[in-house]
Amino acid sequence: MHDLKWTDAEKKIARRVFDAALQRELAQTLAAFKVRAADTSSPDTMWPIEDWLRDRRREIDAKYDYRYSQLDLVFGRLLRERRIEEKDLDGLAPDKLDAIRRVAAF
Amino acid sequence: MHDLKWTDAEKKIARRVFDAALQRELAQTLAAFKVRAADTSSPDTMWPIEDWLRDRRREIDAKYDYRYSQLDLVFGRLLRERRIEEKDLDGLAPDKLDAIRRVAAF
Repeated sequence: MHDLKWTDAEKKIARRVFDAALQRELAQTLAAFKVRAADTSSPDTMWPIEDWLRDRRREIDAKYDYRYSQLDLVFGRLLRERRIEEKDLDGLAPDKLDAIRRVAAF
Repeated sequence: MHDLKWTDAEKKIARRVFDAALQRELAQTLAAFKVRAADTSSPDTMWPIEDWLRDRRREIDAKYDYRYSQLDLVFGRLLRERRIEEKDLDGLAPDKLDAIRRVAAF
């Protein structure tokens, strides 16, 4: 599953889809943070934001792993979470699409 | 220095001054947090808030240590940081005031 060879054309598609999904998730996280901070009116609701930020940062760091050996897992997860759509992956060869769909369905 | 015996009347004063200073510092921290969060418009400025919150929480936890063996150090520091004034301590016996001033001047 991790022996997939990515052509230059596929790498270009992968990079674009990956970066767009990452930017969307960062923007969502920032928006959620700002809502939460604005709603905070006491230390009891402020302190837990530290843990929330750490968890979000770690999750995003772990999820967006741009190594070709990991990309099928990354895109499969993003597809499962509906952060990307199958049509975003148009242009990838069937071996990648199959691997990604298999992960997405898991 | 830590063998000071706090009378009931002194404990009452200490508790009031301690709690008021803690509430002021928490309120200042909350206000600073909200300004910082409102000014945040990118992940690059959002992520460092995690460390800032942790540092602030740890500093406050360490500073506000309500043990009678520590109170001269606590009030000395608060006096040095101008978070309390000498007149707030009116009613404490000279042994406590001396110890507190010595810490404040250090």
